[in-house]
Amino acid sequence: MIIVMKAGATRQDRDEVLERIKELGYQPHVIHGTTRDVIGAIGDERGKLILHSLESMHGVENIVPILKPYKLASREMKRETTLIRLSDTVAIGGDEIIVMAGPCSVESEEQILECALAVKAAGAQVLRGGAFKPRTSPYSFQGMEEEGLKLLAKARELTGLPVVTEVINPETAELVAEYADILQIGARNSQNFALLKKVGQLKRPVLLKRGMAMSIQEFLMSAEYILSEGNQQVILCERGIRTFETATRNTLDLSAIPVLRGMTHLPVIADPSHGTGNYHYVAPMAYAAVAAGADGLMIEVHPDPERATSDGPQSLKPSKFASMMTTLRKFADAADRRL
Amino acid sequence: MIIVMKAGATRQDRDEVLERIKELGYQPHVIHGTTRDVIGAIGDERGKLILHSLESMHGVENIVPILKPYKLASREMKRETTLIRLSDTVAIGGDEIIVMAGPCSVESEEQILECALAVKAAGAQVLRGGAFKPRTSPYSFQGMEEEGLKLLAKARELTGLPVVTEVINPETAELVAEYADILQIGARNSQNFALLKKVGQLKRPVLLKRGMAMSIQEFLMSAEYILSEGNQQVILCERGIRTFETATRNTLDLSAIPVLRGMTHLPVIADPSHGTGNYHYVAPMAYAAVAAGADGLMIEVHPDPERATSDGPQSLKPSKFASMMTTLRKFADAADRRL
Amino acid sequence: MIIVMKAGATRQDRDEVLERIKELGYQPHVIHGTTRDVIGAIGDERGKLILHSLESMHGVENIVPILKPYKLASREMKRETTLIRLSDTVAIGGDEIIVMAGPCSVESEEQILECALAVKAAGAQVLRGGAFKPRTSPYSFQGMEEEGLKLLAKARELTGLPVVTEVINPETAELVAEYADILQIGARNSQNFALLKKVGQLKRPVLLKRGMAMSIQEFLMSAEYILSEGNQQVILCERGIRTFETATRNTLDLSAIPVLRGMTHLPVIADPSHGTGNYHYVAPMAYAAVAAGADGLMIEVHPDPERATSDGPQSLKPSKFASMMTTLRKFADAADRRL
Amino acid sequence: MIIVMKAGATRQDRDEVLERIKELGYQPHVIHGTTRDVIGAIGDERGKLILHSLESMHGVENIVPILKPYKLASREMKRETTLIRLSDTVAIGGDEIIVMAGPCSVESEEQILECALAVKAAGAQVLRGGAFKPRTSPYSFQGMEEEGLKLLAKARELTGLPVVTEVINPETAELVAEYADILQIGARNSQNFALLKKVGQLKRPVLLKRGMAMSIQEFLMSAEYILSEGNQQVILCERGIRTFETATRNTLDLSAIPVLRGMTHLPVIADPSHGTGNYHYVAPMAYAAVAAGADGLMIEVHPDPERATSDGPQSLKPSKFASMMTTLRKFADAADRRL
Repeated sequence: MIIVMKAGATRQDRDEVLERIKELGYQPHVIHGTTRDVIGAIGDERGKLILHSLESMHGVENIVPILKPYKLASREMKRETTLIRLSDTVAIGGDEIIVMAGPCSVESEEQILECALAVKAAGAQVLRGGAFKPRTSPYSFQGMEEEGLKLLAKARELTGLPVVTEVINPETAELVAEYADILQIGARNSQNFALLKKVGQLKRPVLLKRGMAMSIQEFLMSAEYILSEGNQQVILCERGIRTFETATRNTLDLSAIPVLRGMTHLPVIADPSHGTGNYHYVAPMAYAAVAAGADGLMIEVHPDPERATSDGPQSLKPSKFASMMTTLRKFADAADRRL
Repeated sequence: MIIVMKAGATRQDRDEVLERIKELGYQPHVIHGTTRDVIGAIGDERGKLILHSLESMHGVENIVPILKPYKLASREMKRETTLIRLSDTVAIGGDEIIVMAGPCSVESEEQILECALAVKAAGAQVLRGGAFKPRTSPYSFQGMEEEGLKLLAKARELTGLPVVTEVINPETAELVAEYADILQIGARNSQNFALLKKVGQLKRPVLLKRGMAMSIQEFLMSAEYILSEGNQQVILCERGIRTFETATRNTLDLSAIPVLRGMTHLPVIADPSHGTGNYHYVAPMAYAAVAAGADGLMIEVHPDPERATSDGPQSLKPSKFASMMTTLRKFADAADRRL
Repeated sequence: MIIVMKAGATRQDRDEVLERIKELGYQPHVIHGTTRDVIGAIGDERGKLILHSLESMHGVENIVPILKPYKLASREMKRETTLIRLSDTVAIGGDEIIVMAGPCSVESEEQILECALAVKAAGAQVLRGGAFKPRTSPYSFQGMEEEGLKLLAKARELTGLPVVTEVINPETAELVAEYADILQIGARNSQNFALLKKVGQLKRPVLLKRGMAMSIQEFLMSAEYILSEGNQQVILCERGIRTFETATRNTLDLSAIPVLRGMTHLPVIADPSHGTGNYHYVAPMAYAAVAAGADGLMIEVHPDPERATSDGPQSLKPSKFASMMTTLRKFADAADRRL
Repeated sequence: MIIVMKAGATRQDRDEVLERIKELGYQPHVIHGTTRDVIGAIGDERGKLILHSLESMHGVENIVPILKPYKLASREMKRETTLIRLSDTVAIGGDEIIVMAGPCSVESEEQILECALAVKAAGAQVLRGGAFKPRTSPYSFQGMEEEGLKLLAKARELTGLPVVTEVINPETAELVAEYADILQIGARNSQNFALLKKVGQLKRPVLLKRGMAMSIQEFLMSAEYILSEGNQQVILCERGIRTFETATRNTLDLSAIPVLRGMTHLPVIADPSHGTGNYHYVAPMAYAAVAAGADGLMIEVHPDPERATSDGPQSLKPSKFASMMTTLRKFADAADRRL
């Protein structure tokens, strides 16, 4: 932490700050500038957030954090990208681009099985599908719940594809973990710390979506919640942030991919379906995500988007998805990756 | 819903859309424009979100929602502002401006009792204090939990002030409701629908904070979750949204107050402490919130902000709070309200 | 400037940074932290932006600016708020709240004279009105140009009110200055540096609006452009920033008022008409701005908003404006100001 | 335009709206909904913005625009992408990906010639370099002005590369057009309508950057200003929007590329240097832009970024640029384009 003193701060102001820094267990170091003093506080990293309280002291202009408040998630902690096994044959974080595809919501046995077969045929390695749905409106379809989980398990049996599905409540997390291969934390729950701690205690890979107003640093702090509970298998998913632009549902922040690549050893994927909200833009943004260095993609596919109970406008039909996968292979090649 | 057809859409495109609207139970009405057709879908309001799926049909340019997707929260449903009783003597939503004050976190018996006495003496009508703390970092202080709740109850006994404290998990919601007079849903849980449903089933007023990336309409949809479970006592709290500006912790969106006033019958308060993140700005923004029409305020007060375990930089010392309350009375008068 | 080295930076990396700092004329000062070094660069403030180029050096994590890059605009430079004379009887920056009111655009002699008389009668001290209009669409009304300026002068003659109007081009700035008492720089031109320099050379007070994506610091840098050309009469105007919220046209950032109050000696006003884009919200936000500490307001008033060529939806009718002014006086009193 | 009436609007309210629509030259068409009426206004597109003024009428809830307010820029106007010639051998908008590279600012003859040779050798087809620099701070280097233009012309002579450079003022636009092959309008001037009109009257291709808070629709409206003055050669450049995220200088909105592709016939490029502000992220985001469908790129290259007078941290060294170009070719291939 760097404590910046005001230009007009007195010697006494400064001495009280130095005293307080020592009291908190850090060693102060003063730089006398031409117009003001600047104080570095040296010592153990993780507790340093407490130094923010100095901002209310007399003569203090502001506090500048130097160190990142996450540790287990950082690339300084672990140089090589973490490889996470999703099934006997599928792992993410290596050379292979992993595509997770399927409907927004599980709606019926026919729908999910048809979809699972179609995405597998096109080359997807993971099946997605929501059984518990967090919906903005209480009047919208809330998911098939446990019955949906059973249908996902059936689809896995049929196709061999591991399954990713969302967890929305600590109370039902274990139930979901009985059926799912990967537990998804949605954007709206990305700072639901009770839920993060819960999935941190389960033995399943977690796919953590970035919140709509979440900085990249906060994203890693949320991952840190899961890691610090003992679960090292966290996949980060960029799915669009909220900005002033309304031509797309969200603004897919693809630069988060190289930024995260530098900051963390965790694998990173992108979700162009939620990121754009419009099926026309899904394929180009999927290509772009792979070009930017993503380890995988999450794509919504629905056999009949016009009749989907949720997110129809951003879902690809199976035929469009298959054609996207064909082109995607070329971009994976260009990126020296496999698909 | 209005379905806007593309300029080049064919008659067949249009007919298929008309068909699909009827299939979903709505009555279509076509307006033939100079360059394109526009179709209104007439019928029951709440299910209309399903019409969004038409956006993936051929020839459809986009879907424009006309009706607001909330109902119980709307002022059309109930003209007069809802008055919510917080204790035998305190109610919010009427003429009186209600000030909820206290520390960010309950830290010790001494701290919370001292604080409760101080804020009461200055004129606050409700005591705030966090026992379960949702913190961005897993390494930050997470609250005193049940012990904190007991100390809040003690402070209420001592002062007679009703108590507001945060609920962060459906599992502990009932525990919190045993101690608290008002259940707070924090910004990060504002779309934690499992939690919203849970507090909707409890018999306690709920103070719902706006999420950092939450539109005003989504804010009312979250309130609708609580209302539709049977709990009609919801207080809305504007606490700042996330924008590009970094001079303040968040951007306190005071225009949300008159906007909400027009849209909903629920009382609305503002939290200038979280909204600005800096104690220098708390008093002017508190005055501004009352001038804009707020029914109340939530203010962080701490006897020793430099030693606060959380949010020290935005906490007022009791003396500053008392002086703020004196000036606030003048603004309440100007607004034809009481304090 | 603080240069933060990477955790793994070598001694050679550090020495090269130290060398480069000296080469640029600054004196380096190293703090050896537990995991990395941090280097302060001491010396003259204003040139320090050049130190940002060190960010591309090997071993450098990032550069943290300590000092604010504006000087003439800062309160450290000048303690008391600048009082700017707008006419023989009107000055802004003192006790009096200054209200600038009038139509978005000058549309006809009748309209501007009627409006000028009405706003004067209600207590406004300055007449606003656009003659050169910066419009998003080339197909929208672009203003009456010089003829509009003449009508504004006529309205001033009639009422004695000084006139504020927008300058949109360095080429026509002098023409506008012949007629106007205050030169307005609109939000879209807030970083049109050629225009800022030009009005910095003229002898007229300048009303500088904040850009839609402009940080408060950048706002002061734009003011600094005008000040550094020799014109010390700059009035800052908060008029809303662009955020994700669409219920209002912009998000009026009232916290900018106390923030600017601390950072600069320049007077600060608010424009709730553009800030909200909806006449229903203008009065409450005007009250809030004064409560937050604004030195003045800019309000759009139109005799017939339904027929206005621009910004009708956010314009008050003269009767509503008069009633707003009556209530505003109470808030000015509460703020210990005059109106 | 769709005029949505309030649920409680009276028949008289509605009749007055109908009257006013006719008065403005449009034909009203009423849809009677279950809870409210909705009125379509049929007639000529471009003047419809005037209908916004109806929002202040009694009984009107809000106005929903149906038609896009740009026309010349729209793909409905012209189906095939516009091909713009930049020199005898270079054109943008066809199969070839066009890379514009060079320093942020022209600093000296040696620097610009060295840079021009290097970027040409690596395969860039256009040289960029700033002579007039719009800088946030008046104390930063403002460019070499005409001398810089002469050096750019010299570099063109030496290499044969056409030159793109920024215009910041209508007064000097013609001077720049004497030297430059492409006139750049920077993000801060993207709604400087006087400048847009001026370059619309010149006979040079214009590279228009998106403003930091500019919606895609407004971006096309700014292009429309240039087109409607008679200059049909406009290249759109996505260069990052301002969001809450601070890990990158801006948020490069790559989804704008497919969105613009659908809306307009104008070629679209991306500037990952300004978009990210950090040379580490330039190459991945350049690849991503091409994968998303960009027609070209603008990249900052500097022989000695640590000594650059501006934007050093985001500039590539020539060797890194050359290596980026090698990989870029693979992505161009994958996108069925040439480089």
